[in-house]
Amino acid sequence: MSAGVHRFGGGLAEGGVADAALLGRKGANLCEMARLGLPVPPGFVLDTGTFARWREGGGLDEATRAAIREAMGWLEGVTGRRFGGGERPLLVSLRSGAPVSMPGMLDTLLNIGLTDAAHAALAARDPRLAEDCRRRLVAALATTVMEADPDDFDDAVDDWLLDRGIDRIETQDADTLAALTDRMLSIAAEEGDAPFPGTAEGQLLKGIEAVMASWNSRRARRYRASQSLPDDTGTAVTVQAMVLGNLGPTSATGVAFTRDPSTGSARLYGEYLPDAQGDDVVAGIRTPAPLTEADAADSRARATPMQRAMPEAFAALKAHAATLEAHFRAAQDIEFTVEDGTLWLLQTRDARTAPRAGLRIAVEMAEAGAISRDEALLRVAPGDLDHLLHPKVDPAARRDVVAKGLPASPGAISGEVVFTPAEAEALSAKGRDAILVRVETSPEDIHGMYAAAGVLTVRGGMTSHAAVVARSLGRPCVCGAGDARVDVMAGVLTGSDGRAIRRGDILTIDGTAGEALAGALPMIEPEPDPALATLMDWADARRRLRVRANADTAEEAATARRLGAEGIGLCRTEHAFFQQGRLAALQQLILSDTPDSRRRALSHLLPLQRADFVGVMEAMGGCPVCVRLLDPPIHEFLPRTEAAMRELARDMDMSLADLHDRVEELGEFNPMLGRRGCRVGVLFPEIYDMQVRAIFEAALAVEAAGGDPVDLEIMVPFVSTDRETGLFRRRFEAIAATLRHENGRAPTWRLGVMIETPRAALRCGRICEDAAFVSFGTNDLTQMTYGLSRDDAGRFIRDYVARGALTHDPFHRLDEDGVGELIRLGTERGRAARPDLTVAICGEHGGDAVTIRFCEGLGMDYVSCSPYRAPAARLAAAQATVRRERET
Amino acid sequence: MSAGVHRFGGGLAEGGVADAALLGRKGANLCEMARLGLPVPPGFVLDTGTFARWREGGGLDEATRAAIREAMGWLEGVTGRRFGGGERPLLVSLRSGAPVSMPGMLDTLLNIGLTDAAHAALAARDPRLAEDCRRRLVAALATTVMEADPDDFDDAVDDWLLDRGIDRIETQDADTLAALTDRMLSIAAEEGDAPFPGTAEGQLLKGIEAVMASWNSRRARRYRASQSLPDDTGTAVTVQAMVLGNLGPTSATGVAFTRDPSTGSARLYGEYLPDAQGDDVVAGIRTPAPLTEADAADSRARATPMQRAMPEAFAALKAHAATLEAHFRAAQDIEFTVEDGTLWLLQTRDARTAPRAGLRIAVEMAEAGAISRDEALLRVAPGDLDHLLHPKVDPAARRDVVAKGLPASPGAISGEVVFTPAEAEALSAKGRDAILVRVETSPEDIHGMYAAAGVLTVRGGMTSHAAVVARSLGRPCVCGAGDARVDVMAGVLTGSDGRAIRRGDILTIDGTAGEALAGALPMIEPEPDPALATLMDWADARRRLRVRANADTAEEAATARRLGAEGIGLCRTEHAFFQQGRLAALQQLILSDTPDSRRRALSHLLPLQRADFVGVMEAMGGCPVCVRLLDPPIHEFLPRTEAAMRELARDMDMSLADLHDRVEELGEFNPMLGRRGCRVGVLFPEIYDMQVRAIFEAALAVEAAGGDPVDLEIMVPFVSTDRETGLFRRRFEAIAATLRHENGRAPTWRLGVMIETPRAALRCGRICEDAAFVSFGTNDLTQMTYGLSRDDAGRFIRDYVARGALTHDPFHRLDEDGVGELIRLGTERGRAARPDLTVAICGEHGGDAVTIRFCEGLGMDYVSCSPYRAPAARLAAAQATVRRERET
Repeated sequence: MSAGVHRFGGGLAEGGVADAALLGRKGANLCEMARLGLPVPPGFVLDTGTFARWREGGGLDEATRAAIREAMGWLEGVTGRRFGGGERPLLVSLRSGAPVSMPGMLDTLLNIGLTDAAHAALAARDPRLAEDCRRRLVAALATTVMEADPDDFDDAVDDWLLDRGIDRIETQDADTLAALTDRMLSIAAEEGDAPFPGTAEGQLLKGIEAVMASWNSRRARRYRASQSLPDDTGTAVTVQAMVLGNLGPTSATGVAFTRDPSTGSARLYGEYLPDAQGDDVVAGIRTPAPLTEADAADSRARATPMQRAMPEAFAALKAHAATLEAHFRAAQDIEFTVEDGTLWLLQTRDARTAPRAGLRIAVEMAEAGAISRDEALLRVAPGDLDHLLHPKVDPAARRDVVAKGLPASPGAISGEVVFTPAEAEALSAKGRDAILVRVETSPEDIHGMYAAAGVLTVRGGMTSHAAVVARSLGRPCVCGAGDARVDVMAGVLTGSDGRAIRRGDILTIDGTAGEALAGALPMIEPEPDPALATLMDWADARRRLRVRANADTAEEAATARRLGAEGIGLCRTEHAFFQQGRLAALQQLILSDTPDSRRRALSHLLPLQRADFVGVMEAMGGCPVCVRLLDPPIHEFLPRTEAAMRELARDMDMSLADLHDRVEELGEFNPMLGRRGCRVGVLFPEIYDMQVRAIFEAALAVEAAGGDPVDLEIMVPFVSTDRETGLFRRRFEAIAATLRHENGRAPTWRLGVMIETPRAALRCGRICEDAAFVSFGTNDLTQMTYGLSRDDAGRFIRDYVARGALTHDPFHRLDEDGVGELIRLGTERGRAARPDLTVAICGEHGGDAVTIRFCEGLGMDYVSCSPYRAPAARLAAAQATVRRERET
Repeated sequence: MSAGVHRFGGGLAEGGVADAALLGRKGANLCEMARLGLPVPPGFVLDTGTFARWREGGGLDEATRAAIREAMGWLEGVTGRRFGGGERPLLVSLRSGAPVSMPGMLDTLLNIGLTDAAHAALAARDPRLAEDCRRRLVAALATTVMEADPDDFDDAVDDWLLDRGIDRIETQDADTLAALTDRMLSIAAEEGDAPFPGTAEGQLLKGIEAVMASWNSRRARRYRASQSLPDDTGTAVTVQAMVLGNLGPTSATGVAFTRDPSTGSARLYGEYLPDAQGDDVVAGIRTPAPLTEADAADSRARATPMQRAMPEAFAALKAHAATLEAHFRAAQDIEFTVEDGTLWLLQTRDARTAPRAGLRIAVEMAEAGAISRDEALLRVAPGDLDHLLHPKVDPAARRDVVAKGLPASPGAISGEVVFTPAEAEALSAKGRDAILVRVETSPEDIHGMYAAAGVLTVRGGMTSHAAVVARSLGRPCVCGAGDARVDVMAGVLTGSDGRAIRRGDILTIDGTAGEALAGALPMIEPEPDPALATLMDWADARRRLRVRANADTAEEAATARRLGAEGIGLCRTEHAFFQQGRLAALQQLILSDTPDSRRRALSHLLPLQRADFVGVMEAMGGCPVCVRLLDPPIHEFLPRTEAAMRELARDMDMSLADLHDRVEELGEFNPMLGRRGCRVGVLFPEIYDMQVRAIFEAALAVEAAGGDPVDLEIMVPFVSTDRETGLFRRRFEAIAATLRHENGRAPTWRLGVMIETPRAALRCGRICEDAAFVSFGTNDLTQMTYGLSRDDAGRFIRDYVARGALTHDPFHRLDEDGVGELIRLGTERGRAARPDLTVAICGEHGGDAVTIRFCEGLGMDYVSCSPYRAPAARLAAAQATVRRERET
């Protein structure tokens, strides 16, 4: 065939599934179906090369026109019909098809070739059908080829219908439809810039150009920008003989899935509409009927299932669906039309399924041998697992409903109420859960939603911005709680019963039930999913990277183990100090200058910390536990109110003026760059000494009580010099020696550092002389590498990205070029100095699949992430292994 | 001779100047003088190997004792005297001598060997001399060998003298001296732990051990710690025949410099005391006489100069001094004794001189051919030049004295009064001059003094902590202004006339006159120094690195050129905005959302900025001018008081509430990590666009007015991505194009970036695709590399260093391992991507000699520092070239 034109059907298939870049996904699959001998209406694809020539030349060149004419001649021959006339007129559809699917973004034109002559021929057989087809053609060409403004056009059509009291076009008779079509033509002639093409070839060529032009529509460009798709690939255009689903009761159009896209169940699933055309099924104007008897029984719908109405077409559909799934080795989403009892397949593509369904399909297909286990692993997006694992509110819990809305994103979470994205980010940066409460959300809020643990909005439905984003982020969300009111300025959420919930109050979002509840409710874990368990087994067998979890409490540690974490990669110790009674003791430690007051504080804190650690260690039952010593800026622990100061001064037997001085001295201009991390341990040695002693004693206590020996790691945060590490090693060894002297026993332990400053990464070789492991803390490392605080960046980073100064927010996606370069240098230098060095990553990026692949590339030992992300991380690690092996 | 013993004198010289590590500096030079045939009393050196054996063995081993005995036998032979007795008893001195000089830190013992028999023999000739020698011996041995507590011993001796009404020992007769010596012996016997050694050998061996033990005295250890000297080298001990300067009027002891140590003038200079011994000259008990007739005439002292009193000995001294200087190729500091008309040289060492004198000596010696020009360059410490260049208060200025004190450190400076080191650092970080006012200073204040431009204390003398530190830092300082009062808490300095100077008031410190003056006084530049001019010529001829200066105003630019800067490496543009009238306009730009208000602000600011730049460019007369666009955190420009807010809201026609919101939105948690540097330029494009336009227009104006074409560079601060750079390049090119369109002309310019984030250093290769030059800003780069803000670090970094977690403050000395590694990587990657890339360093480290050597090693193009440091930088650059060539 001529260059740029690829025919399919009628015994030909000039292309196949591998040609998606050239033919578009849709065109390639049509060729592939033709190649398989499936009943595809014949047609041809104008490839992306043709598109490129059209774009460059500002129109279709003569060679292309000639090739189209030639292909149309072939199509007439194959179908035995004539384009533009004759007794059996040939109508064609024009469909766009980009290499990467852009659903609904590009134009589709049907019934091309319906000239007056063709119309007359069709009308001779079925007058209403002829008018219906002509109406559809004119409506489509009015705003594309004739270039009428869509809004103006729709308004004018609506006016005409309103004048006549018509509210449903579909039920009108042929005359009314004809009058409507004439009216549309005259509106378009007035509003538009181009005439209606009367000839079949005119409709075809102008239609093809209109489909191509839709690539550059504002809507399509925005979509590509939002999906980071390139602008230059262009689209192919498929020209295909029309088959008519609107020829009466023996005709139909429908959609079929080879497996249930909601549950993944391996049975044909779908909907159809008798006597209908095009996108009538998905447009929702008439209620479609189910395909199968089983679904008809389930739905108690009175509509006749296709299985009963058209048993032969149904049988063919079922057989072809099986063929397609087996051939494409993935669940398929198939469009079909039945024309006078004959089944035609119009499109097939890999089905988009709910996360749980996709997982089940991948596992079942691998178990059936249709795909390999490696392929099953690659088919599940790690992020999808998040949805399956989040806890739900315990049904036994007493529910105190503050506001009711829509169940916009499933799962449940408790947290502190905030009213702005910035507050959400600030709270999240401190490791606390924020519930973001908004009137409604807009793209400006996405960063806040990312930072928030849950979302509540007063306006908006299931497809509102908040709902869509929350589902994609896996955040529990209640939308459209219209009986509540939000005053962002005042920081008050007024519940449906009038009560005021203020900033910092605790709220539970039950995104499954669509309710916001007062206080923190008890949660239960979701049902175990057998497919998930199987996939996790396969992932664990396949992955090289180990996966640990960040867990601070015994409860989190238990969750982490249950979700397959092989240890704790980050056990933070600071949250404990914010508890009642402990903060005051810590403040005394920091603020006092008398040894007596310090000793009192230490003797108060030590047993409490020890008990914390015993709980965590017991829960981990011998798996590694990496405890990070106190990390936050010391000023976070300072008393803030005058009353707190006065009380503390009294407790410490210190003058209020002296205390004020000391507090002021400990305040900082840039807390992120001050007395934080191990600097606290250097400047207030008692604190780390107490923590280390508590950790050691806890390990000994666990073992003494018959528990597994604790695989203990102590991690020093925010290191910037090797001297710090040496200092701590010697000090902690001395504590261990004292303990051995006192008890005759000391725990086995390893010292490591958290690499959060560029300097620590660069000096990793020297630091490793004292450290047996290093763990990259990517949040802080990103802050220091960019010179950008996460707290502050939240306010302007979207602007920054929008202006093109950054490609993405580096706190959301690891910056492999800069931060990643430091991780690479640190890993290389550390390993060179100490070949047995354990190298890991922890922090927000630790559970991210792209980052995990990066870590695999560096040969890291493990990643550590939040417990609920552990399964996703295990899967991502397995994918990374598979991909690495495939690449080499 | 035996191992560990090295003889000199009497025709022998078992060592020389190269053996300082083994013989100590003093012993090596004595051997060298003996080798030169100069009149050195014979003796021998126990080397540092002997010291090491003594330390390891806990005493002198038998081999050493035997070697000492053997050497003493030789000494008796050479001198024709007997040790411990005989008619002509041999007395020896014991002197310590470490490889690196520790002046005054280790013990010296004289008159060793003065047994009863020797005493009797001496007394037969001169009874008073004998008693004087014995008194000196006993006083020295009492606290060393006999181990009496020095304080207790001195108290007891003072009591005895007081009882007898004696206030000057030197004038007492023989009987009184004998009684005093007996009393000292009995006190030492009571207080001390060891008996007085009666035998000559006992005195010798115990004395040697005492000298060795003084290496480990608290005082010596502290000194070594303060000077970063190693503890393990130990000291050599010189045993040398005593010559007596206290044999009457034909004897004397003195000190001579081959050049005047204050001025560098090439003439013999020094002092002597007839009939004196040991350190009587420097002890200041009697007033010494000058050496030369010329000095005697100058001083109008009645004392007879040595030149007249002992012409032969003087002539010998002058000749030997010339020999020594020629031989050691450096001005010498010589100790001598005249015994009965015969000159003996006891010690020579390189003279310590005032900075100006050292400079002159180096230049004159090179001009005389005694040393090479390269050596002259290496001999002058770049930091010493600072002292020579600082301005002084204009004598014509009206002086309004707030407080009078001591002229503790010369030079004059005006600045804002602060009362704490932290305030000084905070102000300095903003590029403003701080005058630190304290009651007195302690080591905890050093960082504040470093940050301060000048210092005033109420207590303390010329050698107080404040005075010593200020001189070493080259900061003008007035000490001991006892008639003023300081209330740090209240932030008030009360002047001698009772007036109150508050925090932020402007004060001038005249460290040359010892006065603190109200307001900012006009300054004049110091006299030009011909030796400096010569040295600078040599340095300029020798260095490879270019030197630019950081200058923000036309005045600073003029100073920079005068001091030899070859361009401006950093012209900051932010100070201009803090001026009256400009701040409000900038605030409108930042806070407004209406284009009108922004346009008004811009049209106000543009001509002012343009005028600033015209001044700077004219002053530089065609040398490169690198203008850095606005850099500080935007929040520094926000209105702070309610009154300012109200006024601004009115000016901007904005509600106060809206303004509050906007100001709050622009506040930051960590200003150093927020909207600063080029982020301001991305987020508020009008500001950079206005600045760039002002810069371009200024360059065109200068050229249009007949000035040299401006070598223009525009520097973007605080870059972290290559996208930022590309963005600015395109924007600034568009501004240049607009200008060309408007005027038919546009300036030639280059775009560069300031590398202050680790990421920019790592990504330098990509960034250089859009940047023709990069300049490392080491202050910020240090902040980000360590994750440590300079503002905050000031409060704890001394503690941090003291605890061993850091070896030094990286803001004072460039951290070559971490920050330097990023500079190295950035330079390599930048040059690899763009071989013609200009690479530079600016910021505080840019004028530091060690850093300059580092930059030379990387092959950088230039360094940029403050104007007054430019000469030091030029010298340091020359030294770096010389050293690099010598190494290769």
